[in-house]
Amino acid sequence: MHLNVFTQCSPSPQFAGLWRHPSDSTSTGYRSLEYWMSVAKRLEAACIDALFFADSHGPFDVYRGSWAPAVRDAVQIPSVDPILVVPAAAAVTRHLGFAVTYSTTYHPPYECARVFSALDHFTGGRVAWNIVTSFLSSAYENGLGDKLAHDQRYERADEYMAVVRALWEESWESDAVVCDRERNMFTDPEKVHAINHKGTYFNVRGPHQCEPSPQRTPVLYQAGASHRGMEFAGRHAEVVFVTLPDPKSGARQVADLRQQLTQLGRRQETMKVLQGSLVVLGRTSQEARKKARLISELISSEGEFAKWCGWSGLDFARYPEDAQVSEIPTEASRSVLRLLYQVNRERNWTMADLRSFISLGWRPHRRNALMGDPDEVATQMEEWMAIAGVDGFNLLPCPSSGIDDICDLLVPELQRRKLFRTAYDPGECTLRERYFGAGNRSCRSLPPKSGTA
Amino acid sequence: MHLNVFTQCSPSPQFAGLWRHPSDSTSTGYRSLEYWMSVAKRLEAACIDALFFADSHGPFDVYRGSWAPAVRDAVQIPSVDPILVVPAAAAVTRHLGFAVTYSTTYHPPYECARVFSALDHFTGGRVAWNIVTSFLSSAYENGLGDKLAHDQRYERADEYMAVVRALWEESWESDAVVCDRERNMFTDPEKVHAINHKGTYFNVRGPHQCEPSPQRTPVLYQAGASHRGMEFAGRHAEVVFVTLPDPKSGARQVADLRQQLTQLGRRQETMKVLQGSLVVLGRTSQEARKKARLISELISSEGEFAKWCGWSGLDFARYPEDAQVSEIPTEASRSVLRLLYQVNRERNWTMADLRSFISLGWRPHRRNALMGDPDEVATQMEEWMAIAGVDGFNLLPCPSSGIDDICDLLVPELQRRKLFRTAYDPGECTLRERYFGAGNRSCRSLPPKSGTA
Repeated sequence: MHLNVFTQCSPSPQFAGLWRHPSDSTSTGYRSLEYWMSVAKRLEAACIDALFFADSHGPFDVYRGSWAPAVRDAVQIPSVDPILVVPAAAAVTRHLGFAVTYSTTYHPPYECARVFSALDHFTGGRVAWNIVTSFLSSAYENGLGDKLAHDQRYERADEYMAVVRALWEESWESDAVVCDRERNMFTDPEKVHAINHKGTYFNVRGPHQCEPSPQRTPVLYQAGASHRGMEFAGRHAEVVFVTLPDPKSGARQVADLRQQLTQLGRRQETMKVLQGSLVVLGRTSQEARKKARLISELISSEGEFAKWCGWSGLDFARYPEDAQVSEIPTEASRSVLRLLYQVNRERNWTMADLRSFISLGWRPHRRNALMGDPDEVATQMEEWMAIAGVDGFNLLPCPSSGIDDICDLLVPELQRRKLFRTAYDPGECTLRERYFGAGNRSCRSLPPKSGTA
Repeated sequence: MHLNVFTQCSPSPQFAGLWRHPSDSTSTGYRSLEYWMSVAKRLEAACIDALFFADSHGPFDVYRGSWAPAVRDAVQIPSVDPILVVPAAAAVTRHLGFAVTYSTTYHPPYECARVFSALDHFTGGRVAWNIVTSFLSSAYENGLGDKLAHDQRYERADEYMAVVRALWEESWESDAVVCDRERNMFTDPEKVHAINHKGTYFNVRGPHQCEPSPQRTPVLYQAGASHRGMEFAGRHAEVVFVTLPDPKSGARQVADLRQQLTQLGRRQETMKVLQGSLVVLGRTSQEARKKARLISELISSEGEFAKWCGWSGLDFARYPEDAQVSEIPTEASRSVLRLLYQVNRERNWTMADLRSFISLGWRPHRRNALMGDPDEVATQMEEWMAIAGVDGFNLLPCPSSGIDDICDLLVPELQRRKLFRTAYDPGECTLRERYFGAGNRSCRSLPPKSGTA
């Protein structure tokens, strides 16, 4: 079983309003290195696979036509860039992986390749890249990227992947750096190659500015919910993270993903699927339920509206309560429906349904939350793995005690059941080797590259 | 006196070929966090002001029309981005500043503002930004930035400064974050403002994605050698670093800089000038001279050609030995002459002169190197300060023992002469306060912003 902890460098990661928890420390901790170093050490002591950072650029500004609701509730603003947390957190750990969200829309591929090569060197091969194509028009308003249609964004991202993978995997041969004092040769230039990429969206000559790092290519993460997103994941991702509504209906989505892999000529064992779940743990069921009640009370509906309107591009405040969502003829409504259909495909949603659904947030009584005492939660996780066929979890810790609960309550129970490691593999194991076994240090033997270039 | 140590995250910082030094540790250290953390701790123990990182994007590829000479000699390739070193180095220090080169050409201003706000939060206000406008056509070949003429680059950079300073200084009021649980208000949206910048090069709406950091604006560093560059420095820089050929002729350049400050309506005490000098120290003069000889032997002429041709855009290999540099009618030759004229304004340079001059590198017998035992070097530094009127130094340590020599030999002598602090100011002093006195935490009281916006 693979376990990540999912977070974001912002006061209320993932759930709007949770900064109001009485013992909250993230509100100020998110902008301090000490906080992140202590989280990383805690997770490493529990043998967690990786700390996974979401990120976003530009505030959510669709709901009520304003960024004020997002700002008021600290919905991903303020936030800082997680790439800057990794070096400090890596310095106090030896095994924990770091999966970092980085956008193909806001950073040129040559820069992206350089950033991840550096992080891979600095972590000794413990870094993963969560590939996002980004879509917020507020980022565009801030001079970041161009507005592209959904499918075009993925087409561009396919080409982006061809560029960065060529820089990581083909530009420097493994024995290019020779440090030969006799011949006055640090690097043998015959073993360094331009990539000469000329494409629709990018022209990048190379060579790459970094020598090969332990993994060369970071472990490639992706979350693609749309058809085109899943196709992208099938082509590029080594770890796909999903947010399935429940084990049974989730099984189909996982099967689709795995089938696509076969169609693309990839072996099944080259991809892991992780389910994103809120986890609420107590020493007893009752204690867990009490925590869950508090979370439900703390979740801010206005903040959740700000987030969902930003994600979908649909301003819930603009439509009457009885409007049928499916009759709002925009790409936005299709996008929000896609999100909702994952939860309930049959229902005919009105705006009132939508608001009421969203205002519940990701509350703990959702069917995809893990809740209970360690025994109950471990059993739920076993069910998820058996029925949905996932390989592990991206755990969204509840505020305040969440990380401690995962480390102190959940992991020991999983270890007792022999579902989870009790120690990391010895030696210098890269994050990719942890997922795919010893010897799979670099990406070459794994997913085939896109044919776009 | 202010003292920085100048470096770069690459195997042979500043001087081509020095990776060949028998006790070199930078060749592999540049890509390890442990190396940089140990350097930072060493410098903090010696009360150094800041560790200053150069950076460059895209390999030098003008000399011989190829990037092979730069690759062969590790001339700024391989290299990693210094913004990723700062968090780890900051985590093991409490006072040392970090001055980081970041290009206005390769990063959108909204991103740049976010990166430096994060670093300023993470360091507790110890970060400086070395503003560079960048010029390498090889970066353009890698899909980074547009090719702009020299003066246009600075015009664009002026507008860039208006954008980032508005994000840092005007977007979030100091008391915007209220964390008010009663009112469900993390941030008071009335106290967060869009910047609504619409300009020639940038459209950025805001608000800034980060809450105010200790310094808000990082300490602004700049090195402007050209007329337009000096104008830019006069307008924006709080710390200017220069590479004066000798104290006497350097005095005029410093006076020009200071006069420009007055013309722009800035107070003299709002700018510090630091001289960049190679420093070669021994316990005795003889030991220093021995080190200097070794450095001279190790400097690679081919590597220095790669660097200077890259800087100037002029391929030395394309012209006969007796060609007059001033007759090569390109912007490139003007640029290289500008660099040379700083050293010797009278001489009529041929290509042979040029090659012979460059092949000497920044060798220790240059008049602007500091060389000798601690007593001799301290006396040279006193002369520089008295005659050229500089406020301190960016010291370029010689390979291998350089940082130890600065900390163990030079600093104690400067302290004995009461020229340098024996302890940092107590408490939470920002880097700006170290330069400009207590109370000058943020940039507001310092240079006026550009009028471009």
